[in-house]
Amino acid sequence: MPSTLQTTIQAGAQLVTLINVFTVDPADQERLVALWQQATDDVMRHLPGFISANVHRSLDGTKVVNYAQWETQEAFQAMLGDPEAGPMLRELAEIGTPAPVLCEVVSVHHV
Amino acid sequence: MPSTLQTTIQAGAQLVTLINVFTVDPADQERLVALWQQATDDVMRHLPGFISANVHRSLDGTKVVNYAQWETQEAFQAMLGDPEAGPMLRELAEIGTPAPVLCEVVSVHHV
Repeated sequence: MPSTLQTTIQAGAQLVTLINVFTVDPADQERLVALWQQATDDVMRHLPGFISANVHRSLDGTKVVNYAQWETQEAFQAMLGDPEAGPMLRELAEIGTPAPVLCEVVSVHHV
Repeated sequence: MPSTLQTTIQAGAQLVTLINVFTVDPADQERLVALWQQATDDVMRHLPGFISANVHRSLDGTKVVNYAQWETQEAFQAMLGDPEAGPMLRELAEIGTPAPVLCEVVSVHHV
């Protein structure tokens, strides 16, 4: 996984952000992370409108969070109906319980 | 709010990420966003170990998500006990229901 890549969060950017918190049995956290990485590299990132996916694991073991960016809401919706991506998401949802939230960035605050 | 600021997500960065999804009555979403911005600018960003806060609102009106970065888990925990920040978080929790997840970034994927 290329660790030199970085993602930028900026208010007013022309994109939609999908924040998806999966609740998972801690015994399955590592497997869910690996499957999500594979799904992203094999399928998601090749779809029209994909910008980035950023996979997080909770320190307590009970969650996996994907912070993803798509160019438009339409591109995100089209992904859900994609013949490869759709089944892949359903496979992920068998390991953990997803709670997707489609967002826009309102503001960014630094020190 | 300075819209030229930007936040970077990178795997292996020396920080902890707090992803906090607030569920809110759509009538209160705008108020919760404003209060969160104020709490961040007035208090949070002046605390030791604060790196960034990134406020998102869901397109369906039912969520507000804060994607925040702290230098260490200890700095984040210290914030919870801060005499100004603690009561502020409790005020936010009266408007919406928080679901905080403390994370590390596992991987970043681009096109």
